[in-house]
Amino acid sequence: MERVLARDVKSHVGQEIKIQGWLHKKRLIGGINFIVMRDRSGLVQIVLSEDGEVEKLRGLQIGSILAITGKVVDEPRAPGGAEIHEPKITVDVPVTDESPVEIDKPLSHKPENLDTLFDARVIGLRNNREQAIFKIQAETEEAIRKYLNGQDFTQFNSPKLLPGATEGGAEVFKLDYFGKEATLAQSAQFYKQMMVGVFERVFEINPTYRAEPSATTRHMTEFITIDVEMGFITFPELLNLLSNLVNAVVKDVWEKCEAQLNLWNAKKPVLPAEFPAMTMAEIHEKYSKATGENTIGENDLRPDEERWICEYAAKELSSEAIFVTEWPAAEAKFYHKLIDGKPKFAERADLLFRGVEIATTSMREHRYDTLVKQLKKMAVGDPEDPGLKNYLQAFKYGLPPHGGFGLGLERLTEKIIGLNNVKEATLFPRDINRLAP
Amino acid sequence: MERVLARDVKSHVGQEIKIQGWLHKKRLIGGINFIVMRDRSGLVQIVLSEDGEVEKLRGLQIGSILAITGKVVDEPRAPGGAEIHEPKITVDVPVTDESPVEIDKPLSHKPENLDTLFDARVIGLRNNREQAIFKIQAETEEAIRKYLNGQDFTQFNSPKLLPGATEGGAEVFKLDYFGKEATLAQSAQFYKQMMVGVFERVFEINPTYRAEPSATTRHMTEFITIDVEMGFITFPELLNLLSNLVNAVVKDVWEKCEAQLNLWNAKKPVLPAEFPAMTMAEIHEKYSKATGENTIGENDLRPDEERWICEYAAKELSSEAIFVTEWPAAEAKFYHKLIDGKPKFAERADLLFRGVEIATTSMREHRYDTLVKQLKKMAVGDPEDPGLKNYLQAFKYGLPPHGGFGLGLERLTEKIIGLNNVKEATLFPRDINRLAP
Repeated sequence: MERVLARDVKSHVGQEIKIQGWLHKKRLIGGINFIVMRDRSGLVQIVLSEDGEVEKLRGLQIGSILAITGKVVDEPRAPGGAEIHEPKITVDVPVTDESPVEIDKPLSHKPENLDTLFDARVIGLRNNREQAIFKIQAETEEAIRKYLNGQDFTQFNSPKLLPGATEGGAEVFKLDYFGKEATLAQSAQFYKQMMVGVFERVFEINPTYRAEPSATTRHMTEFITIDVEMGFITFPELLNLLSNLVNAVVKDVWEKCEAQLNLWNAKKPVLPAEFPAMTMAEIHEKYSKATGENTIGENDLRPDEERWICEYAAKELSSEAIFVTEWPAAEAKFYHKLIDGKPKFAERADLLFRGVEIATTSMREHRYDTLVKQLKKMAVGDPEDPGLKNYLQAFKYGLPPHGGFGLGLERLTEKIIGLNNVKEATLFPRDINRLAP
Repeated sequence: MERVLARDVKSHVGQEIKIQGWLHKKRLIGGINFIVMRDRSGLVQIVLSEDGEVEKLRGLQIGSILAITGKVVDEPRAPGGAEIHEPKITVDVPVTDESPVEIDKPLSHKPENLDTLFDARVIGLRNNREQAIFKIQAETEEAIRKYLNGQDFTQFNSPKLLPGATEGGAEVFKLDYFGKEATLAQSAQFYKQMMVGVFERVFEINPTYRAEPSATTRHMTEFITIDVEMGFITFPELLNLLSNLVNAVVKDVWEKCEAQLNLWNAKKPVLPAEFPAMTMAEIHEKYSKATGENTIGENDLRPDEERWICEYAAKELSSEAIFVTEWPAAEAKFYHKLIDGKPKFAERADLLFRGVEIATTSMREHRYDTLVKQLKKMAVGDPEDPGLKNYLQAFKYGLPPHGGFGLGLERLTEKIIGLNNVKEATLFPRDINRLAP
């Protein structure tokens, strides 16, 4: 008999079918005995009547692999709207140890229990609510690709093994590479800019590494970045591209993952077609006025300030996302373009969404001479160093005005669902304290 | 004026348009002066008539960024079937240095010139023929995702920073992880098997690392693997899945990348719906008989044998792909399932395509006790080691019969096009001798 998936059981009411999957829940307390089975499509309830069948389940723990044939009966209160009666059970893989986590009820995502959550991750992910996070994440990735492909972008893969920490900064993992030193890529920045010279519009979705020494709710040592770069673009067009991308993701995810979003009571974000933008100075002013803190003149936003301005934007501007513009040149990377006529500021914006930064975007300095000048001024490295030399070559032989952004997949997932820690939206998170499972 | 892309010029015959892009070719030798411009969509030819315009181009090198307005004229001999006359040129980014590679003619892919090819990669990729390789690769990735998503697979991302070399083997990169030792993932094997317990059908497309100490045409230290794993499957179904996937890729790539494939004279592979399979013993026998070499009794195929059997399959079985089955248990990994009733062989197949192995597939041992036994017998590690313990947990708490494969993206691209070295199908290849650009 062909296997029927849980999601299709309801369409077989009155028929004899076979299902296969994991024993997900077991209630053998006399009176009504029932079990719930899980497969890749969802859950289905089976009501046991024969003692012989009940007996087969004695001692079997959650996770056991069963094949069950039985008759489908309409039952509005059961998951999926139908259940299976008069089952005949075959035990394919018996599990005799009790599961380390109870996967038939929501797992704790409280900050004090996150280590427990991650220690038992391999089994805990079998919980439907945990699965939902990663179904939403897979759909988020898919939506991003769909949108960018539709805009004529070409996906590429750049290496993560690099000859040096070309972007500067201390938070870099180093390794021995056949007697030489290699580093793990902290971003695809250089490669995506080089690739503008090849395909004009490019993106990659790959791991990024930061030897981040602090354990926070926002940082990990390994995460997936959506790196986007586009030639022949202006700053307003760049912000527009990013607004459109996030809107496309929200639309697709809410269309395709409604059930999963509901498991987390996720609220569809309120987002205009074009996200509002505010300069950092304006935000400092508003925040200082509202809170009594004084951040005026600071070169960055404080975490609390990021949360505050997001709440402000949601309330006053009907947008749960906001761009922070006019970043002080003092905070700029050497490859950032400074604003024409306002050289104290970089043509950069951070996209804040529901309280945290999910993307950094900027126009890049595309003029070779100016770029080399900025590089030297910021003392990032010697333009003749192999890593930098190859990067600079792309400019020497012609790059158009261009810009792009890096978008964190896990942070985006976290905020779409409304979680509180980026690690909750990571299958197997890595931070200073965690390298397993 | 809105920018028109090279591919759309032909549909504007008789009109005044604007194009933007890179100066790709320049012929100013009196008589007929013309240039070719490149943008993300292709090439377009511009015929110069006014001396003033010709003068603007003096000293400008290939790669210069130009904006050109002019009149579109039908010209069947020009790329795209039309050219631009009476151009007015604006130089947006002048390039004054001569390009390190001539990108308007095919670059050398001869073995003795590969280092030159890769040293100049950043600029060399602007060659249309080089671009074609990576357009085909992007479409290959897309086709794989499309096929697997259509079969109910869920894409996931597993970490590449691991606590140990859990699969055994010496070819592992090690790094300092805040005072502890971490390794770079040599495969997603353990994670994809764990994920069968979550989503049944899973895949990931991510980098893989091997500290491969030999410089060959087939090995790199970093490459992209398509890792696929599926629960509730049998071995014949697994081979069928892989046949279908490769066929889906060939179909999509030949539909969407015809122009790019033609640049390489790529021949559409002859492939039946289900690829033929032959045991290793049979291949040894046939090969030994045909060549006079004696490989009978050997536990692996020699590289020359792989080429030979592929030629044989193409000629005799009308298939450019062939599965090699019945791998000796002596060559098996501890997680391979041995064939029921034939325990001297693993339920594994290698997929050979156009002379090389592009995928290894096997059924996995899904029974906890047997798996632990095989692990101990092969002395891979202590089942209580963190990496192994987490992996084994997935089995202890129930995994169904399952199998999967790892498919190398670059090798697949290489063989689809008919290249001779996997590095030619890698944007920025990494091997023992190369860590840049």
